[in-house]
Amino acid sequence: MKKKIQTVQTLLDSLPFIKKFYAQTIVIKYGGAAQIDEKLKESFAVDILMLYMVGIKPVIVHGGGKRITEILGALNIKTEFKDGVRVTTKESIKIAEMVLSGEINKEIVNMLNQHGAKAIGINGKDMSFMKAKELVGYTGEITSIDGIFVNKLLSENLIPVIAPIACGNSPTHPGFNINADTAASEIAAAINARRVIFLTDTPGVLDKNKELLSSLSEEEIKNLKENGTIAGGMIPKVDAALSAVSKGVEKAHIIDGRVEHSILLELLTSEGIGTEIKE
Amino acid sequence: MKKKIQTVQTLLDSLPFIKKFYAQTIVIKYGGAAQIDEKLKESFAVDILMLYMVGIKPVIVHGGGKRITEILGALNIKTEFKDGVRVTTKESIKIAEMVLSGEINKEIVNMLNQHGAKAIGINGKDMSFMKAKELVGYTGEITSIDGIFVNKLLSENLIPVIAPIACGNSPTHPGFNINADTAASEIAAAINARRVIFLTDTPGVLDKNKELLSSLSEEEIKNLKENGTIAGGMIPKVDAALSAVSKGVEKAHIIDGRVEHSILLELLTSEGIGTEIKE
Amino acid sequence: MKKKIQTVQTLLDSLPFIKKFYAQTIVIKYGGAAQIDEKLKESFAVDILMLYMVGIKPVIVHGGGKRITEILGALNIKTEFKDGVRVTTKESIKIAEMVLSGEINKEIVNMLNQHGAKAIGINGKDMSFMKAKELVGYTGEITSIDGIFVNKLLSENLIPVIAPIACGNSPTHPGFNINADTAASEIAAAINARRVIFLTDTPGVLDKNKELLSSLSEEEIKNLKENGTIAGGMIPKVDAALSAVSKGVEKAHIIDGRVEHSILLELLTSEGIGTEIKE
Amino acid sequence: MKKKIQTVQTLLDSLPFIKKFYAQTIVIKYGGAAQIDEKLKESFAVDILMLYMVGIKPVIVHGGGKRITEILGALNIKTEFKDGVRVTTKESIKIAEMVLSGEINKEIVNMLNQHGAKAIGINGKDMSFMKAKELVGYTGEITSIDGIFVNKLLSENLIPVIAPIACGNSPTHPGFNINADTAASEIAAAINARRVIFLTDTPGVLDKNKELLSSLSEEEIKNLKENGTIAGGMIPKVDAALSAVSKGVEKAHIIDGRVEHSILLELLTSEGIGTEIKE
Amino acid sequence: MKKKIQTVQTLLDSLPFIKKFYAQTIVIKYGGAAQIDEKLKESFAVDILMLYMVGIKPVIVHGGGKRITEILGALNIKTEFKDGVRVTTKESIKIAEMVLSGEINKEIVNMLNQHGAKAIGINGKDMSFMKAKELVGYTGEITSIDGIFVNKLLSENLIPVIAPIACGNSPTHPGFNINADTAASEIAAAINARRVIFLTDTPGVLDKNKELLSSLSEEEIKNLKENGTIAGGMIPKVDAALSAVSKGVEKAHIIDGRVEHSILLELLTSEGIGTEIKE
Amino acid sequence: MKKKIQTVQTLLDSLPFIKKFYAQTIVIKYGGAAQIDEKLKESFAVDILMLYMVGIKPVIVHGGGKRITEILGALNIKTEFKDGVRVTTKESIKIAEMVLSGEINKEIVNMLNQHGAKAIGINGKDMSFMKAKELVGYTGEITSIDGIFVNKLLSENLIPVIAPIACGNSPTHPGFNINADTAASEIAAAINARRVIFLTDTPGVLDKNKELLSSLSEEEIKNLKENGTIAGGMIPKVDAALSAVSKGVEKAHIIDGRVEHSILLELLTSEGIGTEIKE
Repeated sequence: MKKKIQTVQTLLDSLPFIKKFYAQTIVIKYGGAAQIDEKLKESFAVDILMLYMVGIKPVIVHGGGKRITEILGALNIKTEFKDGVRVTTKESIKIAEMVLSGEINKEIVNMLNQHGAKAIGINGKDMSFMKAKELVGYTGEITSIDGIFVNKLLSENLIPVIAPIACGNSPTHPGFNINADTAASEIAAAINARRVIFLTDTPGVLDKNKELLSSLSEEEIKNLKENGTIAGGMIPKVDAALSAVSKGVEKAHIIDGRVEHSILLELLTSEGIGTEIKE
Repeated sequence: MKKKIQTVQTLLDSLPFIKKFYAQTIVIKYGGAAQIDEKLKESFAVDILMLYMVGIKPVIVHGGGKRITEILGALNIKTEFKDGVRVTTKESIKIAEMVLSGEINKEIVNMLNQHGAKAIGINGKDMSFMKAKELVGYTGEITSIDGIFVNKLLSENLIPVIAPIACGNSPTHPGFNINADTAASEIAAAINARRVIFLTDTPGVLDKNKELLSSLSEEEIKNLKENGTIAGGMIPKVDAALSAVSKGVEKAHIIDGRVEHSILLELLTSEGIGTEIKE
Repeated sequence: MKKKIQTVQTLLDSLPFIKKFYAQTIVIKYGGAAQIDEKLKESFAVDILMLYMVGIKPVIVHGGGKRITEILGALNIKTEFKDGVRVTTKESIKIAEMVLSGEINKEIVNMLNQHGAKAIGINGKDMSFMKAKELVGYTGEITSIDGIFVNKLLSENLIPVIAPIACGNSPTHPGFNINADTAASEIAAAINARRVIFLTDTPGVLDKNKELLSSLSEEEIKNLKENGTIAGGMIPKVDAALSAVSKGVEKAHIIDGRVEHSILLELLTSEGIGTEIKE
Repeated sequence: MKKKIQTVQTLLDSLPFIKKFYAQTIVIKYGGAAQIDEKLKESFAVDILMLYMVGIKPVIVHGGGKRITEILGALNIKTEFKDGVRVTTKESIKIAEMVLSGEINKEIVNMLNQHGAKAIGINGKDMSFMKAKELVGYTGEITSIDGIFVNKLLSENLIPVIAPIACGNSPTHPGFNINADTAASEIAAAINARRVIFLTDTPGVLDKNKELLSSLSEEEIKNLKENGTIAGGMIPKVDAALSAVSKGVEKAHIIDGRVEHSILLELLTSEGIGTEIKE
Repeated sequence: MKKKIQTVQTLLDSLPFIKKFYAQTIVIKYGGAAQIDEKLKESFAVDILMLYMVGIKPVIVHGGGKRITEILGALNIKTEFKDGVRVTTKESIKIAEMVLSGEINKEIVNMLNQHGAKAIGINGKDMSFMKAKELVGYTGEITSIDGIFVNKLLSENLIPVIAPIACGNSPTHPGFNINADTAASEIAAAINARRVIFLTDTPGVLDKNKELLSSLSEEEIKNLKENGTIAGGMIPKVDAALSAVSKGVEKAHIIDGRVEHSILLELLTSEGIGTEIKE
Repeated sequence: MKKKIQTVQTLLDSLPFIKKFYAQTIVIKYGGAAQIDEKLKESFAVDILMLYMVGIKPVIVHGGGKRITEILGALNIKTEFKDGVRVTTKESIKIAEMVLSGEINKEIVNMLNQHGAKAIGINGKDMSFMKAKELVGYTGEITSIDGIFVNKLLSENLIPVIAPIACGNSPTHPGFNINADTAASEIAAAINARRVIFLTDTPGVLDKNKELLSSLSEEEIKNLKENGTIAGGMIPKVDAALSAVSKGVEKAHIIDGRVEHSILLELLTSEGIGTEIKE
């Protein structure tokens, strides 16, 4: 009996957090280990379902880099990266979309629906809701997002699962590959999300001594970038985070996707587990 | 960290129960110790808020016997009980309504709203939604319930808090006092609730050895009444429970209102704590 | 036949007034003799029903002073008045709410519904729609009114019957007693009512010779207060009236509640019977 | 003062009738003297407005026989009647429609709108809502009425003013003239009206001694027709009345349109002035 | 087979035009030969139906001059014209309305409905949607148009067919005759139509050599009027056209109503057939 | 000018067909040459847009066999066919979905949207709207279709573009490959489509002399199958067609996708070009 009461008490401890995010939209960039490891995939699905059931509105933007590389390899198509951004050729954009929208996207959608949610998978070509122009080759820069369309899906109690492919400007254009972090950031801004969460393969932003920094402002990030503490692949992530908060998203979170239930740990417990970024 | 993960795991353990009752209506008869003890009152409010936040739709039907007796005493008006049902005179029905609708009802409403819910207090005279005819004096027998009105309140995301007073049939009729267990049972049937829960000052229905019976059918209850195991004040409760399930409510629960968070323990944990009654 | 035609002619004489107030909201402060005398109660109910049937939207704000004093007396709780405003203790606010919301409010609701209207009784704790802070003891000063909630009830063709109790700011706060004239005035302003009518136990505002003043401006009231013509209990009433018109209510009326059908006489006949106050 | 109270009392006497017909549809066949005499026209307009303002839903079906005859005469087109029904030629149907829809209909619409109602004039060709087939020449027999269309106008708070012309079955068909009594009767049945009222140039149905019969059943009418008491132009009227009640209209009224405010006298006073026909 | 493919190709050639005008409102002034010749009437009906079926929203404003003159003649009522505008007497306004609303309007409505559209015929007295004041006698100048009413009809997928009669300001006022070109122009402006089309009995605006001018600006029209190229009955037409475009209508078209399917030729083929006027 | 009039005449010839299919749903199985040849792809997109613009509601169900075989080949995964139905392994279902949902589906969606329609691409996993069970390996048999979901998309004026993949019954199930003809047939039945059209690489069903049979009944098909005239790959097509008509679809069409604009030729011209199948 004691144990049962403890159970309920734990449940009640989450109530203030559930109240805080009730009917709020949370954009989640889903990628890295969390998207590959079977146990983490299940943990992710359950976390999203939990948010969905308690009245929070998740939007998933997923990546798929490793699997794209794999298929490109199997098809003997060479991949090139430049500053952490994939250089996409006409040949590889088709493969990228095929893998993102035809495999990974539907796998996530199915996982969520089989757990009891109502998810729908889209990319920027559906309703032409996300448009881009050329950045480098077929890697694009978002020029517009139809936030009304995404919010309409949310208002019908659906979970949009979005592959980061934007449409070009002709019936035969193969579309543009968009960096998933950037897509998540811009979509969060376009739909007035309350939070954007980036799942990564690190505990969050670390200081010089490799200790987690649990909260950072724009100013602090600027300093950390200047002194080289924030470097490499973390730079585009903090930039995406900062961009979102500068456009009205309350906070951005960089959390460890390798930890089971990291999303619930970050949103529904008192301390969180990663780095919180605000203006 | 381990502790946090355990916290989240506990949360997730409740997910199947949250899914089961999602968007379902639960009528709760609120009375006894749970309505008097300050700590239990707070625990009740928090339980209802938790249900409300995770998308379950509670309806509260409350009693108020002790406080009515107190006020009647202070006003030197005599009370008489017969078979556990208060015999209500024209003088006492006015006091009963005053206490139920003017003190207890608004106290519950305020408690819930101040915690973050949206509650509204009503009795059968509002919209004439619950009508009765004479049973004994001004104790009445329900003749009709406007379930559409109650469901409309629920569809607007409100928590109806109902005092068990029914209206009579003239502008000057003082109304009828209704047994709160009966009112909860009939309201549950009228609005197609999924469950009806009776908070009592016992652990539930007990067998001859005073051990809790965790599940009972109509047949079993009949036998227990015949052999005297179910007796006294428990009889009208099991009758109210049986009446609800016979009219389409899935299950009725008789649980211990003296235990903190008994509602959540019953609905959101795997074993529950009281007696479950089904057809 | 002649008589019948006269009947219809009388009916038609009211047409311009019905047109003037069609779909308009009228807040009525209901108190004094009109709330005690059985014949006047019936007359009030019929007046409200008439307004309701011809498409005018009444909102009732009621007092209950005498009955509260009575019950406080019966319970041996002392009452103290100061400048015509009851000084409310923690003990007496509970009794006041009990009487207002549990007896008087439901009696009015029942009276209206049994005549064919659709009324619902509320106080400030319902939906926390009227909030207050301390003025003197548990007599409060309104800090906010959720006009949208009241207008939603009106748009559903309901008659809100409001007891002048406001909620405090904690789950255990007993609430605040609000002067009913003030509550009517502020509610009228908050819901953009066209008119506010105060039923009193005088013919209206009188001049030095005790003759009725049928129309008064803010300037004239200022003078009458300065020269002592308006004095005593009439002061808070004209202040409540002026406050409403200063916040956009077209006119306020102070009329004699002791006259049967005084509301219809004031609104649907050409001269009216009381004092009309405008800016 | 006494007079004013009498005024209000008269108003209140109509309340039970207003309640009875609240939100109910009343079809009124408007014709005869009431359509010609200037004072009666004004009286008619005011009656309809009164019904409209108190929440009753009038539908006007008008005739125009005399004016049609006049214009046909001015244009030297011969008219022929047969059993009280105009025999309509291709030439005269065009004139009939012109007069009915182009003059009389719009005059009624304008009269009502200038008094404060919202009326719209239609005939059977609008939305093809009333179709007919040949009876004699271009006098038709209704084959279908789109009751949903008329009820949609009513639900938008409009007063439909209907000229009794039905459409034929080709783009060039001039349409059919419909007896206005029949049209009123059939429209009342098609839209589930509560009552249908025929304004005539007689006090109602009279007995052998020329005394008014205030209430008649189908059986009684049958007898009165057999013994010749009901004869001539009254026959099609009682037939239209009986047809309506046989199709679910509660009652039909034959009243004296030459009496000012005859509609209000019939509907909103206790005895009425004409003949009431029920099944 | 070749022919069939050509057929489909022709259909597809209209696609860009259908897309351009999709869900757009087009006001069409219908008059002249197109309203008299049987073949042209049929052609007009089919054109309107085609627009309606492909999602374009037509509004018809019709004249009726010749038929009014005819009837006035038959009734021996004299007609007088002044600057191309009929001088309307009290006697003739009644005949004008009778012919316009009672004959021509309903004929158009019937023609459209029998082809499969949903048309409703109105004039300014319906809902008092178009009001005017005196210009000369009973020829009026529009003072207000209730564009919301017309747009509501359009939103219900109806085709409003409007006779150019405006209401006056009393229950007995016969209304005002409005020049149909002016009415079309003002209605187009009031409902934010995309285009206004004037059907005339000329190929459009012609230059000195009687060659069609396919496109004209305000400036060019000014010059053509000054040098006398635009003269006579064409002046009020170009003025109505210019007035519409100055109030936000994209373009006005003056086209030859004597050519079958002139409306479709102008709107759904690449070059059009008449004169296009823009700011 | 003559040519222009001919153009408009052609347009008008399609009017009866546009009327016939107005607001009706047409399911189109898109496959074969029409999906590969660039010119035919463009022709298909334009046909769908034309239907969409004139108010007809297309639903696309596409195949993708050749491209799947190509990718499987490039990845060295063997394909096996059995009775014209691909035998799908766990390895190949993933590739099939990737190609269908990630490449072909989005290409069609983009093509339609860039032409001005509003299309959205889905497969059975979205909203779990199409479920299946095992037929042979990962080739499935449809067990349920959520027609309400597809009709909701249509009611929002969207064109659903559906890849024939159904979901299985677990979060990790890769889904089932569904024969596209069967999927089109079952979807047409589930959403009460008016017609289902199968684009093929033949002119339709041919008789023994290789002449096109323009219309066939169930009985005739049975005979043609028995005598071997209908054989091979045509068998599953006529079976899919018959299945749809047996479930309430008015007619099924088997037409030649190799002919440009075959869909418009079949639906909007008088004779059609393929084989029409009805019960």
